[in-house]
Amino acid sequence: MRVTCALIASSFGFLLAVAPSTAQGPPARPTTGPNAEISAQLIEDLATIRNAALREDYAYQRLAHLTENIGPRPSGSPQAQLAAEYVASALKEMGLDVRLEEAKVPHWVRGAETAELVEYPGQVPNAKQKVVVTALGGSTATPPEGITALVIAVKNFEEFSKLSRAQVEGRIVLFTYPFDERKAEAGHALDAYAESVVYRGMGAKAAADLGAVASLVRSAGGADYRLPHTGFSVPAGIPAGAVAAEDAELVEHLAAQGPVRMHLTLTPKAMPDTTGYNVVADLKGSEQPEQVVVVSGHLDSWDLGTGALDDGAGVVVAMETAHVLQQTHLRPKRTIRVIAWMDEENGGAGSKAYTAAHSKEFGAHVAAIESDLGAGHPLGFDVKINRSGMDLLRPVQDVLASFGANMLSVVEFPPGADLAGMAKAGVPTLGIMQDGRTYFNYHHSAADTLDKVDPRNLQENAAAMAVMAYTLANMTHPLPR
Amino acid sequence: MRVTCALIASSFGFLLAVAPSTAQGPPARPTTGPNAEISAQLIEDLATIRNAALREDYAYQRLAHLTENIGPRPSGSPQAQLAAEYVASALKEMGLDVRLEEAKVPHWVRGAETAELVEYPGQVPNAKQKVVVTALGGSTATPPEGITALVIAVKNFEEFSKLSRAQVEGRIVLFTYPFDERKAEAGHALDAYAESVVYRGMGAKAAADLGAVASLVRSAGGADYRLPHTGFSVPAGIPAGAVAAEDAELVEHLAAQGPVRMHLTLTPKAMPDTTGYNVVADLKGSEQPEQVVVVSGHLDSWDLGTGALDDGAGVVVAMETAHVLQQTHLRPKRTIRVIAWMDEENGGAGSKAYTAAHSKEFGAHVAAIESDLGAGHPLGFDVKINRSGMDLLRPVQDVLASFGANMLSVVEFPPGADLAGMAKAGVPTLGIMQDGRTYFNYHHSAADTLDKVDPRNLQENAAAMAVMAYTLANMTHPLPR
Repeated sequence: MRVTCALIASSFGFLLAVAPSTAQGPPARPTTGPNAEISAQLIEDLATIRNAALREDYAYQRLAHLTENIGPRPSGSPQAQLAAEYVASALKEMGLDVRLEEAKVPHWVRGAETAELVEYPGQVPNAKQKVVVTALGGSTATPPEGITALVIAVKNFEEFSKLSRAQVEGRIVLFTYPFDERKAEAGHALDAYAESVVYRGMGAKAAADLGAVASLVRSAGGADYRLPHTGFSVPAGIPAGAVAAEDAELVEHLAAQGPVRMHLTLTPKAMPDTTGYNVVADLKGSEQPEQVVVVSGHLDSWDLGTGALDDGAGVVVAMETAHVLQQTHLRPKRTIRVIAWMDEENGGAGSKAYTAAHSKEFGAHVAAIESDLGAGHPLGFDVKINRSGMDLLRPVQDVLASFGANMLSVVEFPPGADLAGMAKAGVPTLGIMQDGRTYFNYHHSAADTLDKVDPRNLQENAAAMAVMAYTLANMTHPLPR
Repeated sequence: MRVTCALIASSFGFLLAVAPSTAQGPPARPTTGPNAEISAQLIEDLATIRNAALREDYAYQRLAHLTENIGPRPSGSPQAQLAAEYVASALKEMGLDVRLEEAKVPHWVRGAETAELVEYPGQVPNAKQKVVVTALGGSTATPPEGITALVIAVKNFEEFSKLSRAQVEGRIVLFTYPFDERKAEAGHALDAYAESVVYRGMGAKAAADLGAVASLVRSAGGADYRLPHTGFSVPAGIPAGAVAAEDAELVEHLAAQGPVRMHLTLTPKAMPDTTGYNVVADLKGSEQPEQVVVVSGHLDSWDLGTGALDDGAGVVVAMETAHVLQQTHLRPKRTIRVIAWMDEENGGAGSKAYTAAHSKEFGAHVAAIESDLGAGHPLGFDVKINRSGMDLLRPVQDVLASFGANMLSVVEFPPGADLAGMAKAGVPTLGIMQDGRTYFNYHHSAADTLDKVDPRNLQENAAAMAVMAYTLANMTHPLPR
C-alpha cells in the first residue's frame, strides 16, 4: 500500500478517514433475513460461496507462485511483467475474458545503499558505525562514492520549521518521528502509519527546500528488528532514504551529544518509463453483462520483499472470487471483473490508465472492491457508499458473521488507492478491512514474504470478497449511488 | 552468548541442563528470617542494596556508552579494546583495584556477504532472487567473486545422514531446521535454541566431510523479520553462513520443485590473533580480602549489532554491584571482584586465560556469578552449588521476592560460559536466570541494540546480582562446596 504526500491532502486521505462512529458491528440476533434486494435464494448462494472459499487453497497456491517463484514485482520490472502474464493466464484458464491493458509505468531500480557514521561523540579513533538504510522511491542518487555530511536530527516538521537555511544547508536531515506501535497494537495501525508516513512522503521536499544534501526518515513501520521500510517519497532532487528505527535512535542520541557526520551512498536509477499492464478479466454476467462489479488487488510490489502482504494477497483473493464461483457453478447476473492493478506503489499509473480508458463506463460500474491492507483476519469492509445502501447489506453481514467479517465502516475517502478514479465518479467502493495490528511491521520491508500470510486468514479474505462481490452482482438493483 | 558444538558434548551443555524439577519457587510465607549464615543485619543490608539498585541508572548509562558510542565489540577489534579501557576506567573511578589481564584472542573480521538464487523453478529469465545471509564465525572465505553451486536443502542431521557423498559433493548444503518459537514463547527458549544451534555449530563440519563447497543454516533465532543471526561455527575449511528464516523457507520450497542454484559470496578474514583484555577489578573485602566473589558479564559482542543484550547488559550489571555498594556505603567482608570477560563469543580466550592465571586461587574463590542471557526480567538464578547451600540462601530469596527474582534452579553445567574453569574446580557458580522468551529473537543479530534493554528490567538484574554477591561475600561462612 502506498501513501503519498496526498495523505495530507485528499486523494489518499482514506487512510485517515476510518470513522469508527459509523461502524456497524455484528447485527442483532436473530439474523435479518432476505430483503427486497437480497433474496432468500441469494443468501443461500452466499453461504455456499463462503463455505467453498473457506475450504479452497487456490489463492494461497497462486500467492506462493507470485511471491516465491516470481518474487518482488516493482513497476517496470520483468517480474511485474511476468506476474501480469501469469495472472492473465490463470484467469483465462478459468474461462474469463482477459485483457492486458497498457499503462505507462515508472521503472525505478534500487542501487547500492549503505550508510555509516564516520564521526560521532565517543568514537573509537577511525571507527565507523553502520547505519541500516534503504532508498525511498523517488530518491535521486548520490555519487557512486557517496556523500559525507553532518547530520541534523529533528523530531517533526514543527521542530524542522524552527531551523534556518544556514542550519540545514549542506546537511543530511534525519526526521526521527516514530511510528506509534502502541497505537497500532490497539487497533489503530492506519492512524499510526498516517502520522509517521508524512515524513517519508514530504520530508525530502522540506529538507531540499532548505538546502539539505540528503534526507532520511525513521522508517514508517513497527517492530524492532533493524529493518528499514521503503516507500514513495515526493521527488525532491536529493537522495532520500529510510533508516531502521534503531539507527534513527542511535543518531538522535549521538547528535544530542555532539557532531555526527555520516557517509551515505544511495545509487538508485530512474530508468525510462515503460509499458506495464493491468490484468482485466471478466466473468460475464448472465443478465446484465454490461454492469460491472470490480474485485481487485495490486500486482506490483516494492522490491525489498516479495510483496505477499502488499499486495499479492489482494490479487489472489480477487482471483479466488472467480475461482470459487467456477467451483460452485454459480453465475453472477452482473459481470464480475477481476483486476490486478499495476503500479499502485509508485504513482498509480495503472489506476489512472483504467480511469482514462473506462471512465465512460463508470455509470455501469455498480461497485468496486479492493483488498490492499494485507492478509490479516478480515473484520469486514470499509465502505464509501450511499448510506441508504448500508441497511440493504445487512443480510451479507449475517453471512459474513460466521467468521467475524461482518463490520461495515463508512469512510470518506476511497477505501483502496486504485479505486480513486471510480470513487470520484460516484462508483460505490469497498475495501476489505483487515486486522492490521502487525501489518506495518512488515509493510514495504524485506520481511513482506509468503510466511507472513496465514492460509486460514487468506481463505477468510477470499470468502469476504467473493460473498460481497456476488451480492453486489446479484442483488435486485445496483447499490444506490 | 555463545554455544558451540560442545553443546552436544559437555562444556556448554548447561544450556540443556536447566532442571525445573529442582527449581525452588517463591518461599512459603512468612519469610524465613535470618539463619546461622545470614544475620538479621545482613538481611537489612541486602534490602538496602536492593532498593538502591532499583533506583539507579548507573548501569543503563554505562550500557548506552558501550553500545552507542563504542558500538559493536568483537574480539580483537579496536572497539573491544576501548571498551575494556572504558570499563577499567569507570571501575577505577570507584576506587576499585583494577587490572587489565591479557588473553590471546582471535580477530575475525566480516567481509562482503551476499547471496542470490540464480536458477530456480518458475524463474523470470535471467532474474535473481536475493537471499539474506550472514557469515558465521569460523567461516572461511569464498573467492571475492563468490561461488555458484546447486543447493541441497535438508531438514536435519538425520536427513543429511541419508545422503551420499555424490549427492553432496560440490553443493551448497542448507540445513533448514527451525528455531521453535512456540517453545521459546512458552518459556523454554534455551531448549529451542539448543535444538537448532547444533546446526550452526556442526553443520559446516558435516557438510565439509561430504565434500560440500559451502554450508548454510537457517538462523538459530526467533522472530520473522528477515534477520540473519551469526554465531560461532566449528571451522570446517568451507564458507559457512546463516540465512534468514524466510530465505531458508524460500529455498526449501523452491528446491522441492526443481534445481536451485545459488551464487554465494562470503569474504570474512581471520586476522592474526591479538592481545585482548579481561577487566578484573577488586572491591577489597574488609575481613577476608583473599576470599573472592566474582560478578561478571562478557565485554565482547558479535559484530552485527551493538551487543546490548549479549552481553553489554551483563557487564554493566556487574559494574552496578560495585557502584551500588559505594552508594550505600556498605563494605563486603570478602572481596567482590568485577570481571568483564573478553572473547566469550569466539573461543572463550578470556575465560581460559583467567583460569590459567588464577586457578591456584580458586580454592579462595567462594563463588562466581555471570549474567549472559540478556536483560529480561530476572526470575532468579541458575545455580551449580552444593545442594546443602540451597537452604542457606532462603533469606536471599525473600529479599529478591519483592521483584520476583527469587527462583533458584539447580543446573548441572556452569550457568555462564565464562565460569566453566571455576565450576570445574568446584567453585560454586551462579547465573542470572532472565525471562528469555524474546532473547533469541535478537541474539547475535543486527537488532541486538540498546533499545532492546528495558531500564527497569536492567535495574532488577543489577539488584539481583548485587544482593546475591553481597550475600556470598558477607555470609558467615562461604557456601559449602
